[in-house]
Amino acid sequence: MSVYLHDIPLVQAQARFREALQEAGLWRVLGVEEIPLDENALGRVTAQPTWAKVSSPHYHASAMDGFAVRAEDTSGAQPASPIQLSVISGQSSVQAQYVDTGDPLPEWANAVIPIENTEPLDENGKITSAVRGPSSIRVRAAVAPWSHVRPLGEDIVATQLVLPAGHILKPADLGAIAAAGHQTVRVARKPKVAILPTGTELVPIGSKLKAGDILEYNSLVIAAQVRQMGGEPTRFPITKDDFDLICQRVQEAAQTHDLVLLNAGSSAGAEDFSAKVVEKLGALLVHGVAVRPGHPVILGTIDRGPQTIVHRPSSIVPIIGVPGYPVSAALTVDIFVEPLLAKWLGRRPLELPVETAILTRKLVSPAGDDDFVRVVVGKVGDKLLAAPLSRGAGVITSLVQADGLALIPSGVQGMEAGEKIQVRLYRNRNEIEKTILAIGSHDLTLDLIAQFLAEHDRRLASANVGSQGGLVALRRGEAHLAGSHLLDTQIGEYNISYIRQYMPNIPVKVVALVGRDQGLIVRRGNPKGIKTLGDLTRSEVQFVNRQRGAGTRVLLDYHLNLMTIPPDSIAGYHQEEYTHLGVAAAVASGRADCGLGVATAAQALDLDFIPLFQERYDLVIPKQFAQDELLSPLFDLLADSRFREAVSHLKGYDVSVMGNVILED
Amino acid sequence: MSVYLHDIPLVQAQARFREALQEAGLWRVLGVEEIPLDENALGRVTAQPTWAKVSSPHYHASAMDGFAVRAEDTSGAQPASPIQLSVISGQSSVQAQYVDTGDPLPEWANAVIPIENTEPLDENGKITSAVRGPSSIRVRAAVAPWSHVRPLGEDIVATQLVLPAGHILKPADLGAIAAAGHQTVRVARKPKVAILPTGTELVPIGSKLKAGDILEYNSLVIAAQVRQMGGEPTRFPITKDDFDLICQRVQEAAQTHDLVLLNAGSSAGAEDFSAKVVEKLGALLVHGVAVRPGHPVILGTIDRGPQTIVHRPSSIVPIIGVPGYPVSAALTVDIFVEPLLAKWLGRRPLELPVETAILTRKLVSPAGDDDFVRVVVGKVGDKLLAAPLSRGAGVITSLVQADGLALIPSGVQGMEAGEKIQVRLYRNRNEIEKTILAIGSHDLTLDLIAQFLAEHDRRLASANVGSQGGLVALRRGEAHLAGSHLLDTQIGEYNISYIRQYMPNIPVKVVALVGRDQGLIVRRGNPKGIKTLGDLTRSEVQFVNRQRGAGTRVLLDYHLNLMTIPPDSIAGYHQEEYTHLGVAAAVASGRADCGLGVATAAQALDLDFIPLFQERYDLVIPKQFAQDELLSPLFDLLADSRFREAVSHLKGYDVSVMGNVILED
Repeated sequence: MSVYLHDIPLVQAQARFREALQEAGLWRVLGVEEIPLDENALGRVTAQPTWAKVSSPHYHASAMDGFAVRAEDTSGAQPASPIQLSVISGQSSVQAQYVDTGDPLPEWANAVIPIENTEPLDENGKITSAVRGPSSIRVRAAVAPWSHVRPLGEDIVATQLVLPAGHILKPADLGAIAAAGHQTVRVARKPKVAILPTGTELVPIGSKLKAGDILEYNSLVIAAQVRQMGGEPTRFPITKDDFDLICQRVQEAAQTHDLVLLNAGSSAGAEDFSAKVVEKLGALLVHGVAVRPGHPVILGTIDRGPQTIVHRPSSIVPIIGVPGYPVSAALTVDIFVEPLLAKWLGRRPLELPVETAILTRKLVSPAGDDDFVRVVVGKVGDKLLAAPLSRGAGVITSLVQADGLALIPSGVQGMEAGEKIQVRLYRNRNEIEKTILAIGSHDLTLDLIAQFLAEHDRRLASANVGSQGGLVALRRGEAHLAGSHLLDTQIGEYNISYIRQYMPNIPVKVVALVGRDQGLIVRRGNPKGIKTLGDLTRSEVQFVNRQRGAGTRVLLDYHLNLMTIPPDSIAGYHQEEYTHLGVAAAVASGRADCGLGVATAAQALDLDFIPLFQERYDLVIPKQFAQDELLSPLFDLLADSRFREAVSHLKGYDVSVMGNVILED
Repeated sequence: MSVYLHDIPLVQAQARFREALQEAGLWRVLGVEEIPLDENALGRVTAQPTWAKVSSPHYHASAMDGFAVRAEDTSGAQPASPIQLSVISGQSSVQAQYVDTGDPLPEWANAVIPIENTEPLDENGKITSAVRGPSSIRVRAAVAPWSHVRPLGEDIVATQLVLPAGHILKPADLGAIAAAGHQTVRVARKPKVAILPTGTELVPIGSKLKAGDILEYNSLVIAAQVRQMGGEPTRFPITKDDFDLICQRVQEAAQTHDLVLLNAGSSAGAEDFSAKVVEKLGALLVHGVAVRPGHPVILGTIDRGPQTIVHRPSSIVPIIGVPGYPVSAALTVDIFVEPLLAKWLGRRPLELPVETAILTRKLVSPAGDDDFVRVVVGKVGDKLLAAPLSRGAGVITSLVQADGLALIPSGVQGMEAGEKIQVRLYRNRNEIEKTILAIGSHDLTLDLIAQFLAEHDRRLASANVGSQGGLVALRRGEAHLAGSHLLDTQIGEYNISYIRQYMPNIPVKVVALVGRDQGLIVRRGNPKGIKTLGDLTRSEVQFVNRQRGAGTRVLLDYHLNLMTIPPDSIAGYHQEEYTHLGVAAAVASGRADCGLGVATAAQALDLDFIPLFQERYDLVIPKQFAQDELLSPLFDLLADSRFREAVSHLKGYDVSVMGNVILED
């Protein structure tokens, strides 16, 4: 049971892959096709420079509705001493001729006077209506040569470069190519990419799930990535972990595709066949790359088999073994597939804009790895902050929520909170400046706030670090607000004493968001008939607790004390879970009969809930931000009846306190 | 012949349109459709929040291949004093169980030890191969509870918000929606947009052109814009300027579309029917907006006619009269159609990132207009510069070349060179920092340089201000290089004396680019048998000249002087054109028999060319930039045989001087 062959540095892995493809003649545009110049050309990459076949305009054109004249005939014209120019006289002495916008300028003319600057006259020299052509016009200002004329080639001169090769076509480009006399455009052929999900544990989207089943959605994400990059993806059906079956599918894919992506099975476990498949069908170039997330990446080439795509430049097909964890998979595609497709399309590789931000918490990173960290980015005061999201390679929502990607390069073992870090941004600065950063205790109503704020041009990005962590973040100036439900057991009051302790000398506004039920999470139907904290001392009742320091643990201890129930009389008091959902999961699995938590955790796992206490969940907002225009939609929201109604539909929530100002310094 | 009803301010026009649509119930998401969760969902806009139906993972899952254990059983394990855990003993006393990545954790376990951190032992306590399951394992380090476990809900908790409504779907989002238990996603229906080109002078792309014909490509650009914005465009065939025909087409379009765009005919000329059409079929809300380019915009609503799209919320259909000039058309679509489609799709309107740049030349702007100026943006030294492109509303290439759009708001009458201006950027900063700004005399070889540099991750943006203008731009630090071909007639030498005069005290490097033929542009077949400057004095030869100050005029006067030909002996010497192409056009139209210019101008209009002199065209580069990494691909290019060959294929160019260093301070 060896691990990977070995993890080689990222740049080395990329170089080895590139060299193999260069050698095979595959490090260049794959092929060229001529397509009609219509809106389907949008986003395609030009395969050749576009040179103009015609000029635009292809003649000297009037730029206005008006009269074509010789500029020299108007010289001396002034408001008080107008000049009269004849319109209908014989060709030899004509001095003015009516032209519509776009009409060719008569050969003898070199300027146009807009119609509104002329006085049309009849044959008697009287001002006339313009319905029939006047016999002459009066002008009261001289015009310069070429006024209101679009000279031949003003836009495009025949033979000039209109667009270079390697250009991604935008709407205006299509117009320019048409204006330059073309009906078609030669673009790079879209690379065909086969995506092969493998794994006996995989089940298709929509399956009824049992423990151990894993939903196969990586192929969906990868297909969308490939399409976004300009490739043409094919999703293959799931293949079981069977060496021969996988070999067969890979060969089938290689015959009709330019690139094969073999998802999962790229590690070194007993059922991980990808490396062996590549070795059997071709050459294994790299197995294991020092990049995180993503380690078990495979890079290789396989023999194509019979030719089926016309004009394919080589008899080999590159293959990439993509790791199974969804974040690893997506990043592997960004790191290895994007540059390859860019090369095959002849365009620049995608480059995200980079900004420097301040890291909100310490990050540990293996010194040997290029470590990519998904971050939420927000501007708090004048600081641009990067708050790391979950680093779990299985947490696809960290990619959904990410505003950017921070790289801790190999050689760096980690970074401290407050250090500057380079972030590749997924969103532009405008969006980031409309982001409200909430750090603290999580509550489901924050999701509803996020949904409502999105309708008012604000984005709520929240990070869950617990109530106390939120107050510390506010003190450090790293968030606009914190959700908090800290009970002071001495005085039975929420939050205020903690705010004074953790955020001394910072003026704040505290607004109640909701009253929220805490209660006992029990199995469906409450088979043990548990009703109060008193029932926890019954011998047949197995309890599961939260960890010391958790708000819910503080609440339990407070009430046990009020009711004079000794903790040690409760079976399982010392068995600790770290989240509401951990408690619910312990109950769902039968490991415990009950635990204290919020109603929504019970609901999430389809358990029953016995409400016991109501606690207040407040929003703590430094005064500086409470008055900021950024947050004003949030305050509007607290008074919005639609929002109140939406929250009151959630189980275990009371909106009667919503918007009450608890404290305002 | 009145002009527009009147030009109203942009914000007022937008408000009037919005209010009419609000009243009609059309200022909201048009409709919702449920689509399968596949890669075609990419880029669609969510119409509802996505709440999780299931948790992910939906069970406590092993995060590694390894052994599930109880963390407490490992406590005290150390390298020198390992602990042994039984694997195959009966269920009651099992202490370790093999799990693959993704397997459910056994109920009794709360941690996983990765396989590479264990020593598998056989029934005799000897280290064994892992092919068959060991009977026990030895571990040499304690593990914390929940190590290498992905707890239930680590990624997604059932009931949580996965994505808000109004979100544009990215690849990872599709995975998250799938992980949350969905097989479909509800998205906003794509608004159907009809695009009706009108105009008797219009001819379809690919037509053989005669004077007065205008290629109809606006509908192509608009269709591509609409598609990029998330709408579904339909391009109608060209309709002649015929009131009844246009009415008929508009009604037909309104029956099957959500929005009608009527292109051109929106001004107030005799053939401009758009406003009358809107008045006849519905309500004309706005005719004329104080925005430049774009003035003759029409906003209105028309009655739908018989219902053909299901669930359309209103009986009226908005219609926009889009001006005919291509730049006006594209900007009108950006200004009026984009926010409407954003509203109909329920997404945020597009917002380009804004940067502050320094304006390179004075801009005059009507005080009453919101004036949009296309600019090239580049970074020269540490200054971000915005160089205005052609402001002609007919110059579609100005949109192709633009890096951004600068707004001179109404109320401001113009801006001086050197002032700071806000630019909405089309490209990101990385790209802009790879832009080489060339300002000066234009030459066709610059197009070839642009094409070759694009292959080396550089972009050449060039602005044509003439040789002297280029040197002045270099002095002001507004360009990286200037193309120049200024002959000092005193000493018969190119450029150097001018550089000393216009750029005193600035160290430069001057490199020869090409030798270029100047000669006489004559009609095809040279009917008057013109061969030398001496022929210009023949009485039947009509000449056309360049303006005073032009390099080519300097060259002519220099040679006339050498040959002692008096200028006044040449018919047409005082007839001036402003560009090489203007000279060529005068010859092509028969207005003159010949003029002095470059070979490519003759070639562009299919004329003959009599080469007379060769002049040198140099690149002038301040030393500061000559040593910069940004420009190094340019110097490589001058030594690149492929590039030399490409230039030598152009008519009238000599590459023997290419790369010669003329001056290096």
